[in-house]
Amino acid sequence: MEISAQNIAQLINGEVEGDGEVQVSDVSKIEQGRPGTLTFLANPQYTKYIYDTKASVVLVSKDFIPEKELTCTLIRVENPYHALATLLDFYVQSKPKKTGIENPSYISSTAQVGDNAYIGAFAYLGQNVKLGKNVKVYPHVYVGDNVVVDDDTILFAGAKVYEGCKIGKSCIIHAGAVIGADGFGFAPDQEGHYKKIPQVGYVEISDNVEIGANTTIDRGSMGNTIIGEGTKLDNLIQIGHNVEVGKDTVIVSQVGVAGSSKIGNNCMIGGQVGISGHLHIGNRVQVGAQSGIMHDINDGEVLLGSPSMGHRQFFKTMAVFRKLPEIFRELNSLSVEVKKLKGSN
Amino acid sequence: MEISAQNIAQLINGEVEGDGEVQVSDVSKIEQGRPGTLTFLANPQYTKYIYDTKASVVLVSKDFIPEKELTCTLIRVENPYHALATLLDFYVQSKPKKTGIENPSYISSTAQVGDNAYIGAFAYLGQNVKLGKNVKVYPHVYVGDNVVVDDDTILFAGAKVYEGCKIGKSCIIHAGAVIGADGFGFAPDQEGHYKKIPQVGYVEISDNVEIGANTTIDRGSMGNTIIGEGTKLDNLIQIGHNVEVGKDTVIVSQVGVAGSSKIGNNCMIGGQVGISGHLHIGNRVQVGAQSGIMHDINDGEVLLGSPSMGHRQFFKTMAVFRKLPEIFRELNSLSVEVKKLKGSN
Amino acid sequence: MEISAQNIAQLINGEVEGDGEVQVSDVSKIEQGRPGTLTFLANPQYTKYIYDTKASVVLVSKDFIPEKELTCTLIRVENPYHALATLLDFYVQSKPKKTGIENPSYISSTAQVGDNAYIGAFAYLGQNVKLGKNVKVYPHVYVGDNVVVDDDTILFAGAKVYEGCKIGKSCIIHAGAVIGADGFGFAPDQEGHYKKIPQVGYVEISDNVEIGANTTIDRGSMGNTIIGEGTKLDNLIQIGHNVEVGKDTVIVSQVGVAGSSKIGNNCMIGGQVGISGHLHIGNRVQVGAQSGIMHDINDGEVLLGSPSMGHRQFFKTMAVFRKLPEIFRELNSLSVEVKKLKGSN
Repeated sequence: MEISAQNIAQLINGEVEGDGEVQVSDVSKIEQGRPGTLTFLANPQYTKYIYDTKASVVLVSKDFIPEKELTCTLIRVENPYHALATLLDFYVQSKPKKTGIENPSYISSTAQVGDNAYIGAFAYLGQNVKLGKNVKVYPHVYVGDNVVVDDDTILFAGAKVYEGCKIGKSCIIHAGAVIGADGFGFAPDQEGHYKKIPQVGYVEISDNVEIGANTTIDRGSMGNTIIGEGTKLDNLIQIGHNVEVGKDTVIVSQVGVAGSSKIGNNCMIGGQVGISGHLHIGNRVQVGAQSGIMHDINDGEVLLGSPSMGHRQFFKTMAVFRKLPEIFRELNSLSVEVKKLKGSN
Repeated sequence: MEISAQNIAQLINGEVEGDGEVQVSDVSKIEQGRPGTLTFLANPQYTKYIYDTKASVVLVSKDFIPEKELTCTLIRVENPYHALATLLDFYVQSKPKKTGIENPSYISSTAQVGDNAYIGAFAYLGQNVKLGKNVKVYPHVYVGDNVVVDDDTILFAGAKVYEGCKIGKSCIIHAGAVIGADGFGFAPDQEGHYKKIPQVGYVEISDNVEIGANTTIDRGSMGNTIIGEGTKLDNLIQIGHNVEVGKDTVIVSQVGVAGSSKIGNNCMIGGQVGISGHLHIGNRVQVGAQSGIMHDINDGEVLLGSPSMGHRQFFKTMAVFRKLPEIFRELNSLSVEVKKLKGSN
Repeated sequence: MEISAQNIAQLINGEVEGDGEVQVSDVSKIEQGRPGTLTFLANPQYTKYIYDTKASVVLVSKDFIPEKELTCTLIRVENPYHALATLLDFYVQSKPKKTGIENPSYISSTAQVGDNAYIGAFAYLGQNVKLGKNVKVYPHVYVGDNVVVDDDTILFAGAKVYEGCKIGKSCIIHAGAVIGADGFGFAPDQEGHYKKIPQVGYVEISDNVEIGANTTIDRGSMGNTIIGEGTKLDNLIQIGHNVEVGKDTVIVSQVGVAGSSKIGNNCMIGGQVGISGHLHIGNRVQVGAQSGIMHDINDGEVLLGSPSMGHRQFFKTMAVFRKLPEIFRELNSLSVEVKKLKGSN
């Protein structure tokens, strides 16, 4: 499908600068731009590539000021990354969609399937399952008894949803994610043997949530584990029992959140972060990759390190940390000096 | 199902304090207690909630002394968490159990299935597989050739067990766990290309073991990878080839244990810990979250940090670490002072 | 199958020392050696076991000099670990191979399957899938539309390959691995809601790559995520969108590589390492376990720590770090001394 720069600008409310008739049929990265493709410039780190890119059209911010001559056509928009998302959405929406029921699949006699669903081969829908409209259940997905999945949600291949959990509208659950496995709850007896605490709560996932591949979200021990509206979880994340994550929070891959902790709205949690159990993390909190959170965190804090500290303190402390060998030498030579001075006094 | 405080107390050998006739039909968390529910108080951090909880009945320890008036009925027991586990067990046992063989499933002609099994749709049992009594194999489970699964074990949806592995009695293997994939063994040649070392050992899982969702336990390169009796593994854990984990050891999510390390009995390993290969970790060892273990550990040690150190040393060292910027300033000003003193001498 | 030391030596171009007629029928670890088995000595840490091992035959390096008498037969080779790999290959190749198509499986009408394939029960091949010769697709594997898998590659049980991805020759993809799930790309709007950036690139896996169990490799946002020839990835690794990993690089389990980073050839990345996005890691780089890489790395560097530093600097710095409590005491006592000296001057 070919489309002109002018037509693209209309779709995203942008302003063309240069040849509006140039046609593109694909997208590319700015540093690997090819003729006949559209690209974008959002991250300033990549500005240097715009002067040599072979891409025909580049989405840029309204206030972008080129420092050299450009050979590409620009489309100026408020937010280039957002505009790109809109364009790619048009593209993805134009492709044919999976629909219908492939065979063999297992749909229990008491399961309800909404209009226009896709049920892939080898998908399993347990007793009393309710799927909304336009739900897509890819092959090898397991939907346990009494699970409810609301409209427009996609469960990719091999996602597993244990009995009784609820998933909202327009969610995307990626391959291999496990929703509702038992939380890690055991009571040691006097001989040190562990007795399992049956986990009788559920998982509730709100609307517009995305859950990455092979991420695991445990069911509540009693009461529910909750993922708030618009929140995005990357791959291989562990969410413990009775955790509550707020709205529009982003959690990067391989993070672990221990049981019963609460994370607020609009937080950003970097990769491989660990959060202890029973904590309260406020809204708009930002946590750098590999940090370890061991205490409650107020709204808006920015943290780094394991155990974590404020990011400014972290950078100051690490700068000194890197000088420890010379600090040690300096301290030792001072000791010697002071001893001499004492002797001479 | 409604049950009175008096009847509950009989089930768990407890003593009622307050109205023994009050009825409950569900459980709740103490901080979210609702009328008509039972809750428990085990973690002292939650004691403050007991005075306001709306729950009708609270399991408490024998020696709990309330500091204010209570509106709920108490049931005093030796170990409230343990008593809760017992009660929830009664509840879970009272629910109907999956049994029988769903279609389509794949049961090879040489597979043996014990009495009273559940084989979900799309489950796969390879050649010469032996399943004991009451084994539950959920949908999409893969049981490779020659695998043995003993009585009363549950394999949840999509668990994968490679050829030749053995799983004991009364184990629970959660969704997406992979038992017996190849260990990570390669021999580099002189040009730096890696040649695979075929992994010809197995995994042996003893009785009463629980394995979390998407956890991976590699088969031995030769000889076996072993998980001891009563040990509990959380989600997304990596256990390398030929690792041996002892009895009644608890490992929290996202821990990685490299090849051939041995972990003793009754250990507690916190989340995201890394343990290098070929190490010997004693019995009753406790390792804090995110620690890195790079050397052998004696019985009973308590460790923190990466690289790890004794927990007391860790807390002392971190307290000073946080002061590094001011230490650096103090050292510099001392240097200046000493120079001055030397000049004036 | 019994085989003599003499015959083994011929297979691997080795030299027998001791009884060449002794027969073995299995392999064992040197520290658990049993009569009638072959073992090997590659890691010097294990040399002590050779004097007591009950194994009948031990592969050793050409220049191994025993310090005591030995009861086993030696076979001297250039590289014992490599020789072992060759022997185990013979053994594994001698076993019967899975072949044919099990029922029920789902092979779309437009899928092409090469000669001598194995398609396990409940495997799914989407539209226009192309499988080369000798490809093995185990049960519950999902191969999305338009995926290409080249000759001699094995996809173990439950591996998932999203639409459009390419896998080279002689690769091994372990159970539960997810190839081609969406990258983590979202554009926040002014209210802080995240809009999904459709991920329209693919994953390309070159020849001779091994991907561990439950590892996830995200598709490119645009352009491809690339895993180079001969590279080996362990279990539970996260590879972000548009990452490029070079040739013959080894990545240990639970590593996370954020989007668009490039890793060179012949690198070794230890377990649980985190690598930030948009970085350039050179060739032959070695990174110790649990390190955090936040900046570009030159060829041949050896790194440790989070944030990472050169390994020599790391060891020096950690040696002082462990002394921080005593350094703090020493500094405080110096301060007192200097104050006294100033007073007395």
